[in-house]
Amino acid sequence: MTRPMTMAEKILAAHAGLDEVVPGQLIECDLDLVLANDVTAPIAIKTVRQITDKVFDPERVLLVPDHYVPNKDIKSAEQAKIVRDFAREQGVTHFYEVGCMGVEHALLPEQGVVGAGDLIIGADSHTCTYGALGAFSTGVGSTDAGVGMATGKAWFKVPSTILFKINGKLNPGVTGKDIILHIIGMIGVDGALYQAMEFTGDVIANLPMDERLSISNMAIEAGGKAGLIEVDDVTRTYLDGRVERPYTEYRSDPDAEYAQVIEIDGADIVPTVAFPHLPSNTRPVAEARHVKIDQAVIGSCTNGRLDDMRQAAEVLKGRKVHPDVRCIIIPATQKVYRQCMEEGLMDIFLEANCAVSTPTCGPCLGGYMGILAAGERAIATTNRNFVGRMGAPTSEIYLSSPAVAAASAVLGHIGLPEDLD
Amino acid sequence: MTRPMTMAEKILAAHAGLDEVVPGQLIECDLDLVLANDVTAPIAIKTVRQITDKVFDPERVLLVPDHYVPNKDIKSAEQAKIVRDFAREQGVTHFYEVGCMGVEHALLPEQGVVGAGDLIIGADSHTCTYGALGAFSTGVGSTDAGVGMATGKAWFKVPSTILFKINGKLNPGVTGKDIILHIIGMIGVDGALYQAMEFTGDVIANLPMDERLSISNMAIEAGGKAGLIEVDDVTRTYLDGRVERPYTEYRSDPDAEYAQVIEIDGADIVPTVAFPHLPSNTRPVAEARHVKIDQAVIGSCTNGRLDDMRQAAEVLKGRKVHPDVRCIIIPATQKVYRQCMEEGLMDIFLEANCAVSTPTCGPCLGGYMGILAAGERAIATTNRNFVGRMGAPTSEIYLSSPAVAAASAVLGHIGLPEDLD
Repeated sequence: MTRPMTMAEKILAAHAGLDEVVPGQLIECDLDLVLANDVTAPIAIKTVRQITDKVFDPERVLLVPDHYVPNKDIKSAEQAKIVRDFAREQGVTHFYEVGCMGVEHALLPEQGVVGAGDLIIGADSHTCTYGALGAFSTGVGSTDAGVGMATGKAWFKVPSTILFKINGKLNPGVTGKDIILHIIGMIGVDGALYQAMEFTGDVIANLPMDERLSISNMAIEAGGKAGLIEVDDVTRTYLDGRVERPYTEYRSDPDAEYAQVIEIDGADIVPTVAFPHLPSNTRPVAEARHVKIDQAVIGSCTNGRLDDMRQAAEVLKGRKVHPDVRCIIIPATQKVYRQCMEEGLMDIFLEANCAVSTPTCGPCLGGYMGILAAGERAIATTNRNFVGRMGAPTSEIYLSSPAVAAASAVLGHIGLPEDLD
Repeated sequence: MTRPMTMAEKILAAHAGLDEVVPGQLIECDLDLVLANDVTAPIAIKTVRQITDKVFDPERVLLVPDHYVPNKDIKSAEQAKIVRDFAREQGVTHFYEVGCMGVEHALLPEQGVVGAGDLIIGADSHTCTYGALGAFSTGVGSTDAGVGMATGKAWFKVPSTILFKINGKLNPGVTGKDIILHIIGMIGVDGALYQAMEFTGDVIANLPMDERLSISNMAIEAGGKAGLIEVDDVTRTYLDGRVERPYTEYRSDPDAEYAQVIEIDGADIVPTVAFPHLPSNTRPVAEARHVKIDQAVIGSCTNGRLDDMRQAAEVLKGRKVHPDVRCIIIPATQKVYRQCMEEGLMDIFLEANCAVSTPTCGPCLGGYMGILAAGERAIATTNRNFVGRMGAPTSEIYLSSPAVAAASAVLGHIGLPEDLD
């Protein structure tokens, strides 16, 4: 009989061909998927070429140019070309071209590429997003991704797990984004350093998949190695008929050993904004109304999915963006973009004087499509508000949910949707 | 009794308070409108500040950030901020913010800012676009625009005029873009240097306004100081109920003296593509089918209006962009973007796997939203195919109409819509 394990430990053990693993153990695992984008793939590709002529499996190497694509400049055009040429040469099936693309961590779940129980590495820090689907999925360096693409293997130090039990009744207007901001505010940006975070409880059980993805997406902002949510009916409804391969459900044993168990009362979570310059620098939105803004960005791998668009549209409907604010909306994938059109959300955005961009990471990482000048302030549904992340070193980023960002765009300062009434 | 004059001469004389002018004469004129964009306005604003505290008329200074907006990078964000701050300080009524914006030369006619008979200078070379509305309108340096903003005046050397008489029956698929490419191919990029170009004849009379605007837009590509089309019912239908101020119709006297009269048989014009690296390097599309392309760009001040979108959509309907091609569609203004949605064009574009951008000049001038890597080739509905204009110095741009660009996007090489059947 093996020791009781967390779901993170179980996934790692299964992929290492071991019956059990313990935190701190160094193991070599078979990988299900290896991901890179236009920034990281060129480096990964160099590594691949040092090892082999062929990737381990062209159906399991995922190449998603999204950061500076459609190409921002010559440099990014050259990067995208390297990725494209490599994808063609290797017959990579999951290469996404301009016009079929999206922000990687929104696109891959949507396209059914990622399944529960998968072990995934990606040369992008927000690869942890897929934890919401019950996968162990983590960001690695570009060279590590290259080795993974060449060999289909990677080594891991088995992380211990922190369990977040979130029960009780959520306050109105509290979303997955507010929950993860609340948690990061509570434990700090290194509160889960090299640990798996596991989210459970009534509150999680009642959250739709798009909001769960927002939570897992930001695990890395607390230093988390992964951000896992057990498979349930919400997951199955999302995966079934979408995911390409059979998937496996792993759940933590009731007596699994956690490094820490943190219980959170849903009623204690309020609409939250992270002030500059750390995601952990959180305050209730209600205490941030004095902050005037120049720009609102609604999109990114954190909050660019359909539910996010719906929540923003609900606030913007019949209203106009404040004349001193640029409101930039970036549906995270081509499919979300189309869904926004079909549901009439796009009409609402345009009627409100928002600019709607083709899918791209764009301003989130200071790429393009809304970079800030010195001293300018943005509210953004993105994931990081580090110094200069969205532009000039003296610009400021405030992180929030889509509804709060939309309300702030109309108000001209940070605020809540109910402030508009 | 005054000497017979061309419409260009008449507009200049009227704005100089003179009964008549002759080519070569230096005159000082009152300006109706002075335009600058995010690239040129910061320089113009510096000049304004050297002269005065107040622009000559805040309703006649037009500030349209469009080149690198939504902001591409910190530098462009700072440029846009200078323009925005100046617009607010001066109470400039025609300042267009992200979400309400468009490519300047598409936006200003659409918004009814530009009228027939106006004398307009703009710190952008394609300011000549408004000639299609019967205005004398020309590109100037940023400093000249600054003096114009400060004083409402500018000096001109009266240009002589070349008259292009285009009669006969156009071949199927020939658009305004093909007509102007044909003309530039015929007379060369300096064929009308510092001369007014005047377009007349049955062919012009039968062209819709959007195609006329494409013709006037590219007058500068033949060196033209302006590209004028007499006001007729098409113009009146376009202007009435749209243009804000009363407008004046000027028409050339029947016995006006032209530097040259060039007669063109419409039947001689075929769908045309300009090869690298000059707009005058034209060939029939039918002789360009060997050119494989990596990207198609449909948009810009030349061809980003509703008729252009309709022509592209007609070709793309029910088809898919070639897998080796990125097709980027950029409706030139927020209004065109909305019209594309309302008419179902957007559905066609997305179904065909095009990326649709928020309005911006973007790739046309190598800004962003589709920059080319070394050796890549684009077909584009833009106006210039100079070396490196859209990216790497070894990349190539082929200029065409929207229908030809759309057909080429599907074919994977340059071609005609009928090649798809």
